Amino acid sequence: MAPSTPRVVVKVDLKKKPWEQEQPLHNRWHPEIPSVAQVKAGEFFRVEMIDCMAGTVKDNSSSADIKHADLSMSHCLSGPIRVVDEEGVAAKPGDLLAVEICNLGPLPGHEWGFTASFDRENGGGFLTDHFPCATKAIWYFEGIYAYSPQIPGVRFPGLTHPGIVGTAPSMELLRIWNERERQIEENGVKPFSLCEVVHQRPLANLPKAKGCLLGHIDTEAPEWERIAKEAARTLPGRENGGNCDIKNLSTGSKIYLPVFVEGANLSTGDMHFSQGDGEISFCGAIEMNGFLELKCEIIRNGMKEYLTPMGPTPLHVNPIFEIGPVEPRFSEWLVFEGISIDESGRQHYLDATVAYKRAVLNAIDYLNKFGYSKEQAYLLLSCCPCEGRISGIVDSPNAVATLAIPIAIFDQDIRPKTRKVPSGPRIVRKPDVLKSTYDGKLPITKNPSCST
Amino acid sequence: MAPSTPRVVVKVDLKKKPWEQEQPLHNRWHPEIPSVAQVKAGEFFRVEMIDCMAGTVKDNSSSADIKHADLSMSHCLSGPIRVVDEEGVAAKPGDLLAVEICNLGPLPGHEWGFTASFDRENGGGFLTDHFPCATKAIWYFEGIYAYSPQIPGVRFPGLTHPGIVGTAPSMELLRIWNERERQIEENGVKPFSLCEVVHQRPLANLPKAKGCLLGHIDTEAPEWERIAKEAARTLPGRENGGNCDIKNLSTGSKIYLPVFVEGANLSTGDMHFSQGDGEISFCGAIEMNGFLELKCEIIRNGMKEYLTPMGPTPLHVNPIFEIGPVEPRFSEWLVFEGISIDESGRQHYLDATVAYKRAVLNAIDYLNKFGYSKEQAYLLLSCCPCEGRISGIVDSPNAVATLAIPIAIFDQDIRPKTRKVPSGPRIVRKPDVLKSTYDGKLPITKNPSCST
Amino acid sequence: MAPSTPRVVVKVDLKKKPWEQEQPLHNRWHPEIPSVAQVKAGEFFRVEMIDCMAGTVKDNSSSADIKHADLSMSHCLSGPIRVVDEEGVAAKPGDLLAVEICNLGPLPGHEWGFTASFDRENGGGFLTDHFPCATKAIWYFEGIYAYSPQIPGVRFPGLTHPGIVGTAPSMELLRIWNERERQIEENGVKPFSLCEVVHQRPLANLPKAKGCLLGHIDTEAPEWERIAKEAARTLPGRENGGNCDIKNLSTGSKIYLPVFVEGANLSTGDMHFSQGDGEISFCGAIEMNGFLELKCEIIRNGMKEYLTPMGPTPLHVNPIFEIGPVEPRFSEWLVFEGISIDESGRQHYLDATVAYKRAVLNAIDYLNKFGYSKEQAYLLLSCCPCEGRISGIVDSPNAVATLAIPIAIFDQDIRPKTRKVPSGPRIVRKPDVLKSTYDGKLPITKNPSCST
Amino acid sequence: MAPSTPRVVVKVDLKKKPWEQEQPLHNRWHPEIPSVAQVKAGEFFRVEMIDCMAGTVKDNSSSADIKHADLSMSHCLSGPIRVVDEEGVAAKPGDLLAVEICNLGPLPGHEWGFTASFDRENGGGFLTDHFPCATKAIWYFEGIYAYSPQIPGVRFPGLTHPGIVGTAPSMELLRIWNERERQIEENGVKPFSLCEVVHQRPLANLPKAKGCLLGHIDTEAPEWERIAKEAARTLPGRENGGNCDIKNLSTGSKIYLPVFVEGANLSTGDMHFSQGDGEISFCGAIEMNGFLELKCEIIRNGMKEYLTPMGPTPLHVNPIFEIGPVEPRFSEWLVFEGISIDESGRQHYLDATVAYKRAVLNAIDYLNKFGYSKEQAYLLLSCCPCEGRISGIVDSPNAVATLAIPIAIFDQDIRPKTRKVPSGPRIVRKPDVLKSTYDGKLPITKNPSCST
Repeated sequence: MAPSTPRVVVKVDLKKKPWEQEQPLHNRWHPEIPSVAQVKAGEFFRVEMIDCMAGTVKDNSSSADIKHADLSMSHCLSGPIRVVDEEGVAAKPGDLLAVEICNLGPLPGHEWGFTASFDRENGGGFLTDHFPCATKAIWYFEGIYAYSPQIPGVRFPGLTHPGIVGTAPSMELLRIWNERERQIEENGVKPFSLCEVVHQRPLANLPKAKGCLLGHIDTEAPEWERIAKEAARTLPGRENGGNCDIKNLSTGSKIYLPVFVEGANLSTGDMHFSQGDGEISFCGAIEMNGFLELKCEIIRNGMKEYLTPMGPTPLHVNPIFEIGPVEPRFSEWLVFEGISIDESGRQHYLDATVAYKRAVLNAIDYLNKFGYSKEQAYLLLSCCPCEGRISGIVDSPNAVATLAIPIAIFDQDIRPKTRKVPSGPRIVRKPDVLKSTYDGKLPITKNPSCST
Repeated sequence: MAPSTPRVVVKVDLKKKPWEQEQPLHNRWHPEIPSVAQVKAGEFFRVEMIDCMAGTVKDNSSSADIKHADLSMSHCLSGPIRVVDEEGVAAKPGDLLAVEICNLGPLPGHEWGFTASFDRENGGGFLTDHFPCATKAIWYFEGIYAYSPQIPGVRFPGLTHPGIVGTAPSMELLRIWNERERQIEENGVKPFSLCEVVHQRPLANLPKAKGCLLGHIDTEAPEWERIAKEAARTLPGRENGGNCDIKNLSTGSKIYLPVFVEGANLSTGDMHFSQGDGEISFCGAIEMNGFLELKCEIIRNGMKEYLTPMGPTPLHVNPIFEIGPVEPRFSEWLVFEGISIDESGRQHYLDATVAYKRAVLNAIDYLNKFGYSKEQAYLLLSCCPCEGRISGIVDSPNAVATLAIPIAIFDQDIRPKTRKVPSGPRIVRKPDVLKSTYDGKLPITKNPSCST
Repeated sequence: MAPSTPRVVVKVDLKKKPWEQEQPLHNRWHPEIPSVAQVKAGEFFRVEMIDCMAGTVKDNSSSADIKHADLSMSHCLSGPIRVVDEEGVAAKPGDLLAVEICNLGPLPGHEWGFTASFDRENGGGFLTDHFPCATKAIWYFEGIYAYSPQIPGVRFPGLTHPGIVGTAPSMELLRIWNERERQIEENGVKPFSLCEVVHQRPLANLPKAKGCLLGHIDTEAPEWERIAKEAARTLPGRENGGNCDIKNLSTGSKIYLPVFVEGANLSTGDMHFSQGDGEISFCGAIEMNGFLELKCEIIRNGMKEYLTPMGPTPLHVNPIFEIGPVEPRFSEWLVFEGISIDESGRQHYLDATVAYKRAVLNAIDYLNKFGYSKEQAYLLLSCCPCEGRISGIVDSPNAVATLAIPIAIFDQDIRPKTRKVPSGPRIVRKPDVLKSTYDGKLPITKNPSCST
Repeated sequence: MAPSTPRVVVKVDLKKKPWEQEQPLHNRWHPEIPSVAQVKAGEFFRVEMIDCMAGTVKDNSSSADIKHADLSMSHCLSGPIRVVDEEGVAAKPGDLLAVEICNLGPLPGHEWGFTASFDRENGGGFLTDHFPCATKAIWYFEGIYAYSPQIPGVRFPGLTHPGIVGTAPSMELLRIWNERERQIEENGVKPFSLCEVVHQRPLANLPKAKGCLLGHIDTEAPEWERIAKEAARTLPGRENGGNCDIKNLSTGSKIYLPVFVEGANLSTGDMHFSQGDGEISFCGAIEMNGFLELKCEIIRNGMKEYLTPMGPTPLHVNPIFEIGPVEPRFSEWLVFEGISIDESGRQHYLDATVAYKRAVLNAIDYLNKFGYSKEQAYLLLSCCPCEGRISGIVDSPNAVATLAIPIAIFDQDIRPKTRKVPSGPRIVRKPDVLKSTYDGKLPITKNPSCST
């Protein structure tokens, strides 16, 4: 006679805007954002979440919504949820919050999602210097499977997971974030090695009142402006977890989050039906509305017990994760390699980012030979369950990164064949992704060896 | 009544020096190094190889051999092997050489290996700024399993693979390599982002006559000096494959290598009983003598058919790989995360190398809490089958990298527990790794938050 | 803008009795049971189902409902569903119906189930001669996980599947069934080898009007009595699929069912949150209410194309299955063996049933040593994802069967240890399963060597 | 500087007959067969073994050697090996012997094997009533892969394992075996249920002096004749392990064997490169010469601690197994089902043997549609890594057994297709298995529905 169903602690109404939800959402990290719900350790509960673009991207045949996306509003999170132990005592700074993902999925009745790359002037993506246009593909779900009218010829089971799980930062941690990210924006690209075009993406996203949602603190509140100016944006993963985009955090996973404020104040959002390692096109998972069914435990004093700070303060820690036992089972992988030589042929020094960029470019060009447009391949590798590995990081001057693609997701055998590949035109995968014009003036990276 | 046994095409005698072998070894890449054997497409053949340090590292209780290692002699490769088709026509530039790994292992009677980190003045490793001393651990093999007297409490099945598989470069490709690597050495650290201490490792390793072995071309030959001065070192992975250190290239894998010279001139070496993604301690796999049993196929014109150059010339390509069906099966993983903030707290921009460094540091400190010394953890994570992933590469300014460790390799449960971890002194894993003194003067990176 | 949600074609209301449902259920196989819904090939649709005991087993602390269960009412199936192709032409006898399971689970709000063994006089179970009492355990679901208050110390992810998926038989096939099953009941136990006590279970379950539900044909209909007398019971798996209890038919699986009547008339039911191979305690899976989300394709003339009849008529065929890509991933298994020697020590001839019985008995006694009661172990092995294999079937006179149990489902390490197992009393797993008295007079099989 | 190589404790010379080996082999179980070697607990050692037919089956193009095989000589085992603990004290009756398989494989230089079915008058196989002729296929190994000239179109990685691992029985256990097996032979087929034709295979194989090898006890010894008359044949798996044919006992597995005599007296043999569950064609694995590299531990008093006797004496136990972490990884399986209806259409009662027979017959007929002869399919399913499961054992009167075949071993996609299978003649897989005539007079089982 136990309760057999998770208690819904955060509910969303997809017909309403983020700020109209009964339990208001928030899209910034700040210790003063009040909790909207409370759960007990061991309790089985459910959280509902809206998609990362807060419902502004539609299931239609245009990518205009992506081109004109307002990123200052993205990542409207559900929570914060205050966690107390079985005696009702709240989690405390220094504890570790163990969050088990017992179940997850799209919201019933909304079984679809999207993958997109932003316009280069509006966020871009990992390969924005090659693909400056905003593009979009819609995915429909048939149970565990996703398929896209814009990327025909593939269908795959989702390794569904939350992009964002995090606890609230303390004021001290928040100040550390704002300080270090401000410095990178102020210092500009000089001290950094990544090839020029990647630099043209935003270096950081500092606190900004525009688009800011602070949950129960509404814009009329006296403290609103102050908090809006200091609350951290949700884009990067940080010490509190946040947007870590670890694609294997699916059902059965456990996340050990450091606690920085009383009650832990857990927030979740940015549900992904599926994502490839790196989430390369930026809005690159299959983004969707969704739910999580969770169970929390408090490991008292666990930060000290299990985490070692790495940096100038005891707050410089990172969460730990356990991967769950249920994953799509693939046995055959095709692996693309990249080394830290950029597209111009220039040598970089043990730079895994450049090496991974090259591995991805190699994979895109390869799939292009099998009838997919490069944009289709770019979005596909952003969202299908491909694995991005750092294979070698010590053999100066080349880092070696690899991208492994599960062969079974394609409706054709994409392995190289000894016999010549079928002559005549390859199957062209039509239609293509939805694509906007690029109206900016930034130079496009050309592959000097490629005429296409 | 087919031949039931692979033909041995390269044999090594471990009692002899590399240059004394009947089929002389080579430790440079150059098109003019003559082939030492020939195989037919479809033929099942065997290659024997000496370890990456050419037998200079001994199964003894001192790390002096590591401290004083001569890296100019490393990576003595077996081959080159000329490959012809069933009609006897050689592989041609522009073809793709498909190399299937049917079997591999240590040389019978030599079932042991070593993992080491070099002295910081002599090659170092990924964390040489933290661990400047030369260290060494010996591993003994019991069939598929390895265990080390210096790292007690762990035992794991090997995912055995060759560190190096590559074809000979053409002169044109060789010139590209030498040019770009010379530039990085000449330009120095300025244009690069990695934190200072990593910079103090060698930026590149240019051609060098010292220690050079050119197979059938002996030092008396008129061309020896010229070739020795232009032949590329084997350290980094490059367009021809080479030292790619992809840990999953185990039995059943297939490697599709571009062909740059007539006959392909395949070379292999640097066998690893096991390696973690990144091979972080540099001499970081379980290095061993070993054999490969291979089968080659020639995909005529396959470079054009399957590879797209990425760079200024048609030679700017990378190999493709297929992973084999036999791997140790782990179901439970503990995952450590790193973001692109270095140990001083400084923000880096989407730098996967920095993020991975932090993930590794987090893992080492975690294992340290369970009784392993930091050096034990460093060497262990270099060589056990752990996975290094690029999880997020678009969420400015933080790259997110993860390191996943299979839980089953430990003789204790290393997961965080809700109940306090067993009080009293943890089990200290004794003895420790073999360790030399560091006599250099480079500064050690300190973790400001850590007193140990 | 495709429909993003499956169309619900059969809905159940758990507050109503099976015969009160809007789309009436049926618990017999007969070609004349009218279809309750129609789907098109390629359509994504949803079917809801009640549990195998039609809601009569409750989430309470008594096993009386199991003891007095009315098996004549069991297996109330949803359907039949008529399947037509994209042009609206119905599936025809001789076609093959490919049914893909895209998603499945418990009905929202009813996340619990039960495992039971029936009283020996009322159905029994595989080991009813050892365990004659009715027993029951309740399982609660936390997302993918199930746990039971009556079997503490285990928790496992479900490999959820339908126990029953089948097409309607033709009249000719129905007659074959009734004839052969009547013969076994009439001939009695003599010609059969299984040990005496198993014989005392029902030999077959012939058509019976009591408890019969025929969907849209209600008891007032003129044909009701005739059909009720000839409609086959649902207990055994047969040529049409039916109660095949293949535990791996989870999400992503495909079932190729022969079509015997126009429209195929697909029925489904008997949802299992999890089941061990063999479903040994009979009501042995975690029985639950549930839903299936399906997609059908018609393979025209597929019976002839893909199936070969094996028996006197072209109807003597069996379905084919493909297992899906998403399963709980276990890496460590403890395996118990049985040979075809029964508990009295008597030799049987290559009898895999006797061998499997012995393997199960060995496993139960083993788990008993770790603190579980034998009844707890019996129910656990019925419903956890353990694997039952026929390992050797040719080495006269002994068949060898094995039962492999995933080690990770236990909260203790159940492997044999070199060091003596912890002395003192083992942890006793309390409370125990719910258990009724056995009031019958059949002899209990004694293990002569066991005092407990 | 530990010993890095296993000590060879039993060596075989393939040029010599079994009785000429330096450490003589034995092909019977008897407590008085003297040990040929001794190992210490924890020691890493190697055992070499000849194939199950003692070298009489040749790599040639005739099946005459199979037709005229002398089964009284089969299973020449290596050992017995006496096991002592680290202090030199022997294992004692009542202990458990934990045997870890660290490595295994074919003997170097002999990388081939064979799969065969015996003539129906000379041992037959599971389907001997359908396939009465002796047949043979040769397999060549390319590292982990096997391929057969007689069964073209398939190639698969081996899940290599010993068919036989066992300890010596005590005299009391030996008497139990001989008594129960004598009874079955004396009582004849009457009390058994299996269909008539299976009955015509030998019911048991009682002790027989012909072909008997007793290791160090040679035929001149005074006790030879007595022992030869009471020593048990090796065919069936029994309480001591023996011929259990569990296909997953590959590298990394552990076998917990009961100890019945002082020193345990471990024997091994009958190496299989690969085997399907059931080993259906009887000589049905890929039989080969081979080696095992092992490590033993003694669990003192472990029989009482971990095993529960099931039968009239404390000796009625079975071994326990742990499956190793390295297995070929398949993700896609095609599953065939059988129910306990025999080929004549007759109903059997919960008979898993009959159900499995039907599942195998269904699979053979299915593969026949893809161009394989039925004999090719029969031998293939005997030796490829297919899984035989007991899916349902409680749903009277039908047992449900399944046979799952990994799809990736074929060079064509063998799944049913919605579109009609390629018209025109299917690819016929030529040449066929080597086949002798059947000169006996026993009736062949006909499938009444099948004209082929």
